[in-house]
Amino acid sequence: MNQISSISESELIKRLHNIIIENTSPDSTSENIDMGIGDDAAIVNPIKNKNVVTTDTMVENTHFIYDVTNFRNLGWKLLATNYSDIAAMGCRPLHSVINLGLRENQKISDVEEMYLGFCDLINEFGGAIIGGDIVRSDTFFISITVTGVSEGNIILTRKKAKIGDEIFVTGNLGNSKVGLEIILNSPDHITSDNNKSFIEAHTRPTPKIQQGLDLVRACITTAMDISDGLLNDLKKMCDSSDVGAEIYIESIPVDKHLKNMYPEKWDEKVVQGGEDYELLFTASSDSINILNDISESEFFSIGKVTEKSSGIKIIDSNGKTKTYNEVGWDHFKGK
Amino acid sequence: MNQISSISESELIKRLHNIIIENTSPDSTSENIDMGIGDDAAIVNPIKNKNVVTTDTMVENTHFIYDVTNFRNLGWKLLATNYSDIAAMGCRPLHSVINLGLRENQKISDVEEMYLGFCDLINEFGGAIIGGDIVRSDTFFISITVTGVSEGNIILTRKKAKIGDEIFVTGNLGNSKVGLEIILNSPDHITSDNNKSFIEAHTRPTPKIQQGLDLVRACITTAMDISDGLLNDLKKMCDSSDVGAEIYIESIPVDKHLKNMYPEKWDEKVVQGGEDYELLFTASSDSINILNDISESEFFSIGKVTEKSSGIKIIDSNGKTKTYNEVGWDHFKGK
Repeated sequence: MNQISSISESELIKRLHNIIIENTSPDSTSENIDMGIGDDAAIVNPIKNKNVVTTDTMVENTHFIYDVTNFRNLGWKLLATNYSDIAAMGCRPLHSVINLGLRENQKISDVEEMYLGFCDLINEFGGAIIGGDIVRSDTFFISITVTGVSEGNIILTRKKAKIGDEIFVTGNLGNSKVGLEIILNSPDHITSDNNKSFIEAHTRPTPKIQQGLDLVRACITTAMDISDGLLNDLKKMCDSSDVGAEIYIESIPVDKHLKNMYPEKWDEKVVQGGEDYELLFTASSDSINILNDISESEFFSIGKVTEKSSGIKIIDSNGKTKTYNEVGWDHFKGK
Repeated sequence: MNQISSISESELIKRLHNIIIENTSPDSTSENIDMGIGDDAAIVNPIKNKNVVTTDTMVENTHFIYDVTNFRNLGWKLLATNYSDIAAMGCRPLHSVINLGLRENQKISDVEEMYLGFCDLINEFGGAIIGGDIVRSDTFFISITVTGVSEGNIILTRKKAKIGDEIFVTGNLGNSKVGLEIILNSPDHITSDNNKSFIEAHTRPTPKIQQGLDLVRACITTAMDISDGLLNDLKKMCDSSDVGAEIYIESIPVDKHLKNMYPEKWDEKVVQGGEDYELLFTASSDSINILNDISESEFFSIGKVTEKSSGIKIIDSNGKTKTYNEVGWDHFKGK
């Protein structure tokens, strides 16, 4: 009785819609929405500032293993990864549409739990779910598209890093990667106090919405979120801006438990680990002074922008350039 | 070498992006877009009128069978079903984001063909692809979200049908259903001249963008597209508007070959068949006169809006009410 196949599509839509209504506040869900779920399309009032649009998909067996998944966390995480992209543009999240591909033998309650996870995130960071589509599939997947809105005319992109600027991140790197390893290899240790921040970084990442808005207010122009690991994402930013970079390993903020757990190889987790969802940005010394004045958040200088011809260098405490194997999150080749 | 697993995600994104650039005109792709594919999110300039947002997903084995699929048609159809929702709101299509779940052993050329189908539709009806996400999946799926924009402040919804108004459709019903049956049961007859309009209705449906815009100009307020069959969709409209309806079977526009093929049961195809993507709308006699003056399209009166207590009646040429089994497109229960 509690499998997806036991109810109709319209009944399921009603139940999920009710979860949203009962678990989010009308303030956040009503912003700018003329009409939400229930017609051919949702209607949104004109928006005065720039809009951004981002989208992300997660698939069972590729991004998560169904049987060991906490669905409330999965809901949070998938929407949070989209919100993180919105944060990386210096915008705040507005409207989300949810596409679900469901197996007939999935538990309805798992899908409902996932929607509670969406609601948790919306209650903390704003926005609203305004529509979606549910279809039958042999593989469970969720695809989310989110729009965001700027406060003014400036949007953060990856394209304007300038030689001489400093490079910053908004918080510890590597935690999510370590969290994933604990979940996969040492599930008995998931509840240990020392591991809490790792598990949470992996399962309920925090989108840096406020920090993104603060960057724009400080007239910073270049940022992205770290989803594929510092090295991979820094490379993308440098390519977009036509510059190089020097990163000082010892300057990267790292959880002390991570260094204890991996005394020899902690830097690999930090430089290569994915799904951190911290912001990576570049700023002049003037901009960073303004930022530190106006923001309540901490920002960590980890290096500087150099000439393109210098490439990307990761430098250790002895001043030596370290090289790392290319790893990443390429979903097709060599995986 | 030509399987998805043979190239990286970023290489595939580049190839698909190039297909879009090479096969669509800069006019349509550049409208309102500040920055498209290649950052954390796409950037869209402020839009003065109302926005609508719709989304649709298609999954192999649920919506199509991979081995007998023409991927250029599939691309057209999936984007067209979203455009049809935009048309049903009286808007024109603006921006699309595409989510792909790809099997490793799929042919790259199939995905490229699908993108050519997207381009075909964009070249005919406008809009642009501004972003997306590609992930690995054990089941192939495509999930598309499309925004549209109104010309003024009026948006067509399902909510305002008034007792006494006439009910109209924009074209023949049942063709897509018959096309599907030919493809499934009589593949040898797909290329027959008589079947051309059926096959095309099913594989390359036309979104009624111009007709939707015309309805708004004629101050019509209530419309939807017929995706789940006339009876199912009329029921949705009546529920939303709190009214009943009378439909006169003989007034429904029907392809003469369809009547010839099914001399006894043609009405079942017409009343129950799904995926017609014609518009269903209600109008006063004043509004329909204006509409016929300003529009180059044909509109067909098929019945009238009645009191809710009368329910929905489908009436044959003898004045008798016919009943039909409940069929439809419910993707979970009883399928």
